[in-house]
Amino acid sequence: MATPARPRRSAPSKRVIRVNYCSHCGVPLSYRVPAGDTLPRHVCDACNTIHYQNPKIVVGCIPEWDGKILLCRRAIEPKHGLWTIPAGFMENGETTAQGAQRETLEEACAEVEIGQLYALYNLPHISQVYLIFLARMKEKAYAPGVESLEVRLFDLADIPWQELAFQAVRHSLEHFVNDRRDGLFRFHSGDVAPQADDDKDKHRPIVSQPGLATG
Amino acid sequence: MATPARPRRSAPSKRVIRVNYCSHCGVPLSYRVPAGDTLPRHVCDACNTIHYQNPKIVVGCIPEWDGKILLCRRAIEPKHGLWTIPAGFMENGETTAQGAQRETLEEACAEVEIGQLYALYNLPHISQVYLIFLARMKEKAYAPGVESLEVRLFDLADIPWQELAFQAVRHSLEHFVNDRRDGLFRFHSGDVAPQADDDKDKHRPIVSQPGLATG
Repeated sequence: MATPARPRRSAPSKRVIRVNYCSHCGVPLSYRVPAGDTLPRHVCDACNTIHYQNPKIVVGCIPEWDGKILLCRRAIEPKHGLWTIPAGFMENGETTAQGAQRETLEEACAEVEIGQLYALYNLPHISQVYLIFLARMKEKAYAPGVESLEVRLFDLADIPWQELAFQAVRHSLEHFVNDRRDGLFRFHSGDVAPQADDDKDKHRPIVSQPGLATG
Repeated sequence: MATPARPRRSAPSKRVIRVNYCSHCGVPLSYRVPAGDTLPRHVCDACNTIHYQNPKIVVGCIPEWDGKILLCRRAIEPKHGLWTIPAGFMENGETTAQGAQRETLEEACAEVEIGQLYALYNLPHISQVYLIFLARMKEKAYAPGVESLEVRLFDLADIPWQELAFQAVRHSLEHFVNDRRDGLFRFHSGDVAPQADDDKDKHRPIVSQPGLATG
């Protein structure tokens, strides 16, 4: 019997999940601006719960081994078959570094030591924030996890640019290549706009931050 | 008639809001590990929705004007009457910088230009991640918003250390004072553990990141 597929945490179903009912008491919700607030919320008039919805954090890392980096080829939608760094939704009760470490273990069966925060990307159109760390593999051991078809160490010269899954990953890796060349790994941040289609790359200017400023 | 209090976004009620019912279809939920997953989730056996719960992002900034910084005295619980930087829960559809800017306008009626990401703090015990930016006030104009009792520009020598509301704010301001002295504003990150009580300061070691590393 085939192993059941892992729920697609990185690939939510396109079915729209609506906030119709109060998760606390089960009655139908109103959608209105609560007194004193500025935005409409899902409000329960029975138990007075306000069901806020907030952005999600995607944590990931660029695992290094001997100058190479570890990438995963996705076994799930979206972007099935394309390459990415190990990354996924942060879980309650963990730190950002623990989340990045866990995702690397889950997707690439690799143990990493998480280093500096390397990049932050805002994806406001889908209410996500990517936090990407530098990381060192503890040993040269890796294998595809349930969400990966293939996991491979790449020389920077061999990164499969035409087959990368996500804009935030592309930007991170572009910076990584440049920073490796310059011998200075700076923190980078930027906003990633919706992609016109699955292949097109559209984004707002990316800002690099030298990590230096005087006050 | 008094203005209705703004809902306590920064101060959720201590009443526990449980995930009992499916927000999509309204039926009672199961709490179990979905097939192929590793953690228990709230699962709807009627419509197959998995109700994931994920950490929330708190965005804020340290607004500067002429060498002073802008702090707000809280008009809401928790930590009513104590001082903090402008910060609050990030909203869907905005970037981290936009969120920090919005919170500053809401809590301190001040317009700021958001600068570099200055600090990241993990609060895994309450599943929050603080993202704190440096910021410049656009003009010397500020006033208490609905969630503030008072807003004031402080010389760094006058920061009310004994009356600060939150650990993450304390750490950020400590780093800010040191970095100002050193003339180098580095990115800082760390994990903040639960406070034993409202006054006690307990936390895991804080790590500063020089923003420099060679690869």
